[in-house]
Amino acid sequence: MSAPQPDPAAAIDYGRSLLLTDLYQLNMVEAYLAEGMEAPAVFELFVRKLPETRGFLLTAGLEQAIRFLLEARVDGGELDWLHGSGRFSQQLIAFLRDFRFSGDVEALPEGTLCFADQPLIRVTAPMPEAQLVETRLINFLQYQTLVATKAARMKLAAPEAALVDFGLRRAHSGEAGLLAARAAYLAGFAGTASVPAARHFGVPLFGTMAHSFVQAHENERAAFLSFARARPDQTTFLIDTFDTEAAAEKVCALAPKLAAAGIPVRGVRIDSGDLGAHALTVRAILDAAGLHEVRIVASGGLDEYALAELIDRKAPIAAYGIGTSLVTSDDQPALDCAYKLKAYDGIARRKRSEKKAYWPGPVQVYRRFAEDGTLAEDLLTTADEAPGADWRPQVVPFVRAGRLLAPLPSLESLRERTAAQLAHLPADLRRPDAPPSYEVAVSDRLKALAEEVDRRTGQ
Amino acid sequence: MSAPQPDPAAAIDYGRSLLLTDLYQLNMVEAYLAEGMEAPAVFELFVRKLPETRGFLLTAGLEQAIRFLLEARVDGGELDWLHGSGRFSQQLIAFLRDFRFSGDVEALPEGTLCFADQPLIRVTAPMPEAQLVETRLINFLQYQTLVATKAARMKLAAPEAALVDFGLRRAHSGEAGLLAARAAYLAGFAGTASVPAARHFGVPLFGTMAHSFVQAHENERAAFLSFARARPDQTTFLIDTFDTEAAAEKVCALAPKLAAAGIPVRGVRIDSGDLGAHALTVRAILDAAGLHEVRIVASGGLDEYALAELIDRKAPIAAYGIGTSLVTSDDQPALDCAYKLKAYDGIARRKRSEKKAYWPGPVQVYRRFAEDGTLAEDLLTTADEAPGADWRPQVVPFVRAGRLLAPLPSLESLRERTAAQLAHLPADLRRPDAPPSYEVAVSDRLKALAEEVDRRTGQ
Repeated sequence: MSAPQPDPAAAIDYGRSLLLTDLYQLNMVEAYLAEGMEAPAVFELFVRKLPETRGFLLTAGLEQAIRFLLEARVDGGELDWLHGSGRFSQQLIAFLRDFRFSGDVEALPEGTLCFADQPLIRVTAPMPEAQLVETRLINFLQYQTLVATKAARMKLAAPEAALVDFGLRRAHSGEAGLLAARAAYLAGFAGTASVPAARHFGVPLFGTMAHSFVQAHENERAAFLSFARARPDQTTFLIDTFDTEAAAEKVCALAPKLAAAGIPVRGVRIDSGDLGAHALTVRAILDAAGLHEVRIVASGGLDEYALAELIDRKAPIAAYGIGTSLVTSDDQPALDCAYKLKAYDGIARRKRSEKKAYWPGPVQVYRRFAEDGTLAEDLLTTADEAPGADWRPQVVPFVRAGRLLAPLPSLESLRERTAAQLAHLPADLRRPDAPPSYEVAVSDRLKALAEEVDRRTGQ
Repeated sequence: MSAPQPDPAAAIDYGRSLLLTDLYQLNMVEAYLAEGMEAPAVFELFVRKLPETRGFLLTAGLEQAIRFLLEARVDGGELDWLHGSGRFSQQLIAFLRDFRFSGDVEALPEGTLCFADQPLIRVTAPMPEAQLVETRLINFLQYQTLVATKAARMKLAAPEAALVDFGLRRAHSGEAGLLAARAAYLAGFAGTASVPAARHFGVPLFGTMAHSFVQAHENERAAFLSFARARPDQTTFLIDTFDTEAAAEKVCALAPKLAAAGIPVRGVRIDSGDLGAHALTVRAILDAAGLHEVRIVASGGLDEYALAELIDRKAPIAAYGIGTSLVTSDDQPALDCAYKLKAYDGIARRKRSEKKAYWPGPVQVYRRFAEDGTLAEDLLTTADEAPGADWRPQVVPFVRAGRLLAPLPSLESLRERTAAQLAHLPADLRRPDAPPSYEVAVSDRLKALAEEVDRRTGQ
C-alpha cells in the first residue's frame, strides 16, 4: 500500500487523539507488545528543579490530562493513515484501535503549590499504556502549570486589581490560548478576552475595542458613541490612539449625553506610554468631571514586575489586561520536567544519567503547616510511609482501573482552592523576585531505596 | 434563553473556527454592522521592532493563515452557544453563520527573510471581515515565524548536521507542537519526532527510545536487542541511562550479533552530561570496534548557541534532537507584532500612540541584492511605488475576492526557497549573536504620507 498523501486539513480531536505523540512512543510500544512486556509500570511526571525565577509552582492541567487518558482514541482517519504509512505492525495498530486506559492515576490536585520532584501526575498501568501517553501528559500539564504559576505571581503582585487575560493572539496556537485562559482563571484572574474559554470553561468574558475601531471613525467621539450604542453594557473606551488626556476629556464631555440615554460609561483603557503617569492624570480628569465610577483599565507589555511597580506607585488602575507575558510565561517558557519510570513489574527503578538522577519508586508529598495555616515544610517519602499526624499527604487518587473515583472538581472550586493555597504561602515566597528557597526534605526510607536501586543496577 | 453550560469536551475545528477570537472583535463587528461600516479596510500584520537577539526573521505560517481565511466558519455547536449566551445580536450571529471571506490577501511568502514593519500578511476586505480575523491571523503567523526563525538560526549554526524536532511534549499545546514541526522543517530541519506532523504535512519522522525502555529491561543489552528486533530499521540506541561509555562498549559487543541477523546498528544517542566530551570518547570506542558507520545523535537542552559551541569544538555528532528551545523559542517566546489598520474607505490611517506609531497605508517591501546574490538593502515604500529595476518587490498577491490565485506552494518547495534565502544572508547576520543591524530604508513618499495622515488626524 502506498503511503498516504499528507493532509493539512485533516481534523484532529485535540482532547483525545493518541497520535499526538512522538514516534519513539510507538516504536517502544511495538517492542513491548512484541516482547509481551505488559506488566504494570509506574511513571511520575515531575519538575526536576524549579527555575531560579520561581519560588513555587502552581499545578494546573490535570483535568485535561485525565480526560485525555480516559477518552484517548485514534479516529478512522488516523487508523487509515497508520495502515497506509506502512510503518507500523498490525499488532500495534490493533492496540491503538482498541486502546482504553485501564490504569490508576494519582496526582497533586490542580491549584496546589508544588516544588521539585513532586508528582504532577502518577500513572500506574500496563507498560504499553503508561508509556504511550507520556508526550501528551507532559504537553497538557507543563503548559497550564506554567501559565497558572505566572498568573498566580501576577495575582500576588496585584491582589486588589481585576486581572484579565488578553493573550489569545500571542499564545503559541489557538489551543494554547484556550488553555491559558483556563489556567489564568484558576489562578485568580477575573476573566479573559478569549471567546472559546467562555464556551468551554465558563470563564467570564471581557472585551473593549481596538485602535482600529477608533481610527476607522471620523474621530474618537464618533467611535465612542458608535460603540456605546452597539454595546451599552460594555462601555470601556480606548483612549490612547492619538492623545490620552485629550481623549479622557472627550469621554467626560460625552458621559452626560450617554447617561441621558441610560448608558453609563464603565471604563477607559490606556495601552501605551507610562501607564502609571497617564492613569494619574486621567483619574484627575475623570474625577474633576464627577466620573468617579469610571474605572481605568491598563494594558500593554505588563508582567508581574510591572504590576508590582504600578501598585507600588499607587497608580489608580482598577483592572489590567495581560497578554504575552502570561500566555507564553515569557521569562520562563518551559519547565525542566520529565515523565519518568519509577517502577516496573513491582521493582523500583531510576536512571543515573549525569544531573538527571531522580527518586525511584512512587512517592508521596507530605506537607506541614504552621499554626496560622502557613505552609511550613514538605517531606518527600516513599508512597507507603506515614510520618505522623502533623503531615498532610498531598498526592491523592483520581482514577482506579480506568474509572474516575469521583467527578472532577469544577473550575470555580479549583479557583477557590487556589486562593486558599496562595493565602498560605510563606511571606518570603510572595515576592516576584523570590528564588526557590522552600525546603523539601527527603525521608530516610526514600534515600535508602535510591541507594538500593543504584546498587542493583550497578551493572 | 438561559446561558448554556460550559462544555470542556466540545470539539473545536482549530483550522477554521471563527470563535477562536477575542470578545472585542465581536463587539466591534456588532458596532460596524449596526453602523453599516462595511467599506474596505486594509490591515497589515507586521513586527514593530526586531528583538535584540534576532538579526532577521523568517516568515512562516501563511498557509495556515490563508486556509483559515478561506475556510473560516462557525459550526452548529458554536452557533448554539452564540444564541444561548444571550450576548450577541441576531445580526452578528447571522453574519458569523454566513461568513465567507470576500477580500484580498497579499503577503511576504513563507520562507522569506523579514525585518521590522514588513507585512507578514495584508488583508483588504469589508471592515467587519477584516477586523474579525485579527486574533487568529496573529496567532498563526507569529508562532510559526518565531519557530522558523529559531530553527533557521540553528541551521546556520550547524549547517552540516541533521537537526530533528523533539519538541512536541514541551510545546504550549498539541497544536503548537504540530505547527512547530512544520515551521522547523520549512527552515531546514531534517524532520521531527511528532507523528501528526507526518500525517498532516509529510514531515519525515525520526524516533529512538526513552530511558524508561532501557530501565524496564533486565539490562541495556536486553533493551537494545528487544528494540532491534521490533524496529530493525531504526536502531538508534540510547546509551546514557547508567554509564555512557560502558553502554557504547555494549553496543560494540552487540553489533556483530545484530549484523549476523541482518540488522545494522544505525546510531547511538547521548542525552546528558558534556555532549561534546562524551561524543569524542564514544566515537573512539565505536571506531575501535570498526563501527565507523554508527552515527552519534545528541540531545538535551540544546539551542543555537550550544550547537555553535559543539561545532566549534568539532564534536563528532551527526544529528541533534532539539526540543524546548525550538518549540518555545525560549529566549524570545513572542514578537512585538501587531495587526494594524492601514486604510479605511480609501483613506490611509495610523495611530500615534507613544512608541507605537507605524507607517500608514499599504506598503511594499523592495529588496536589493549584491552581485553575488547577497541581500544588500531593503526599501519600504507605499504600495504603488516602483523604485527601479534593481529593487525586487517582496509582497505578492495570494487571494483576490476570496479566491486563491494559485495553489499554495508545497512544504518541500518552501523548504528549498528558505535554503536559498538563508544562503544569501549577509555574513554579519549569520552569527547567533548578531543584533538587528540590517538596513530598511523608507521612501520619501511613505514618509510624506505619514506626515499628511498625522496632520489630518491632529484632532
